[in-house]
Amino acid sequence: MEITRFVFSLLFLVMMTVGSSGSPNHWRRKRVREPCKKLVFYFHDIIYNGHNSKNATSAIVGTPAWGNRTILAGQNHFGDVVVFDDPITLDNNLHSAPVGRAQGFYIYDKKEIFTAWLGFSFVFNSTQHKGSINFAGADPLMNKTRDISVIGGTGDFFMTRGVATLSTDAFEGEVYFRLRADINLFECW
Amino acid sequence: MEITRFVFSLLFLVMMTVGSSGSPNHWRRKRVREPCKKLVFYFHDIIYNGHNSKNATSAIVGTPAWGNRTILAGQNHFGDVVVFDDPITLDNNLHSAPVGRAQGFYIYDKKEIFTAWLGFSFVFNSTQHKGSINFAGADPLMNKTRDISVIGGTGDFFMTRGVATLSTDAFEGEVYFRLRADINLFECW
Amino acid sequence: MEITRFVFSLLFLVMMTVGSSGSPNHWRRKRVREPCKKLVFYFHDIIYNGHNSKNATSAIVGTPAWGNRTILAGQNHFGDVVVFDDPITLDNNLHSAPVGRAQGFYIYDKKEIFTAWLGFSFVFNSTQHKGSINFAGADPLMNKTRDISVIGGTGDFFMTRGVATLSTDAFEGEVYFRLRADINLFECW
Repeated sequence: MEITRFVFSLLFLVMMTVGSSGSPNHWRRKRVREPCKKLVFYFHDIIYNGHNSKNATSAIVGTPAWGNRTILAGQNHFGDVVVFDDPITLDNNLHSAPVGRAQGFYIYDKKEIFTAWLGFSFVFNSTQHKGSINFAGADPLMNKTRDISVIGGTGDFFMTRGVATLSTDAFEGEVYFRLRADINLFECW
Repeated sequence: MEITRFVFSLLFLVMMTVGSSGSPNHWRRKRVREPCKKLVFYFHDIIYNGHNSKNATSAIVGTPAWGNRTILAGQNHFGDVVVFDDPITLDNNLHSAPVGRAQGFYIYDKKEIFTAWLGFSFVFNSTQHKGSINFAGADPLMNKTRDISVIGGTGDFFMTRGVATLSTDAFEGEVYFRLRADINLFECW
Repeated sequence: MEITRFVFSLLFLVMMTVGSSGSPNHWRRKRVREPCKKLVFYFHDIIYNGHNSKNATSAIVGTPAWGNRTILAGQNHFGDVVVFDDPITLDNNLHSAPVGRAQGFYIYDKKEIFTAWLGFSFVFNSTQHKGSINFAGADPLMNKTRDISVIGGTGDFFMTRGVATLSTDAFEGEVYFRLRADINLFECW
């Protein structure tokens, strides 16, 4: 009967494991929030201001009625839509060799303070990374750090999900800013 | 041999449980669709029309060639891009204390009837909720209810996914509308 | 002891299966990447150019300072924002009966070559499909194929995720293009 008792203990263990790996009726995950992949990048945005067409990596393409497209609008730029194709670097130097491009848009969306809404991708095509990471979310950019969602990915980042913590690493007037993105992926396929 | 038969029955049970909790080669979930979290909010949109700059919570920032930015365009506003920062309330009263902000954009995207495409976040920073819920999807706004996707979240809503059912709770002309959002989250971490 | 050995083998098998179906502390899935649903559609985009208002399914609604809204801008259309409501067909014929609508926007986002960023939905309301599939991602449209993310869905596509491979099936000047979308869903509820 020793064996039988042992077998039952094992069975119990197995069933506990099964139980904790996914509740059967909905997907409440009580996992340790430990990323399956961590990445840090910087990206650099130079807004077109009428005089820097050679260097500009972004441009205002929509404004409210009171705005124009060569200078960010009053009221904390509320309503300005900016399209960008920014170089991604591994360190905080604009002139480092880019490892990819940050492409998409942001919209300033509050009159009282600076906040933005972002929809964009990191696009990689290097020996190190191939594929894209897609992001969306609110960016209350006056906060030291703010979290946006990683909503999907392709290639090396197939089906990924996670959270990216953005911080403003530097800015110069209203023409240049540099963001640091600490990407923590919690779903890796 | 009684014990052996019993052990086999148990094993069978365990294997069935494993089988239903996640097929090993792809992620076909046959779960009961029961939300892990349910939330109801209202948000209030007052579009800038050239005369209400103090109260307006949104503004037209893009239009087709035939439109302008102080009045929604003809052809069911096709092509109008609106940026918003709307108060979120717990009841349907515009003047209730806001519990957060709905921030992002919508685009009217059909000539024949009113439909829109939405990309926005609910941003909370109160004692009750901290963090954001991110949404995207089509809003065929003439339907009594319509579903959009919850594509991610941060803070209290870390990594969440789900569906939000929108309904137009009220509107006044083309300046004010109030949406009710019934948020059902099916992935909670 | 034969039976005991057999039971242990079975237990071992079960535990391996459990182990591979989900690591308990984070969500690193080592699954075979086999879709739970595969779909192929075509969609057709006719950009408004000032002369085709009857047939146009899309319109330029934002441009950089150097652009206008009846012709795509120079510099590879960088900064042009286009809103669309395109018919979806099962084959590559523009005149086939549409099975749904592709609704949303794209933004040309690079000065040196053609690339775009997409946010849109496939909206179905037919006997075959009811519901929507939501997409987001970078579209380096000079590549023969490119992957974007399926970030969510509603109705028949409730909570789905996956990858859509886009390819340009045809284009005529800068007014008409047809995309083929090979949709592979890897999460089906």
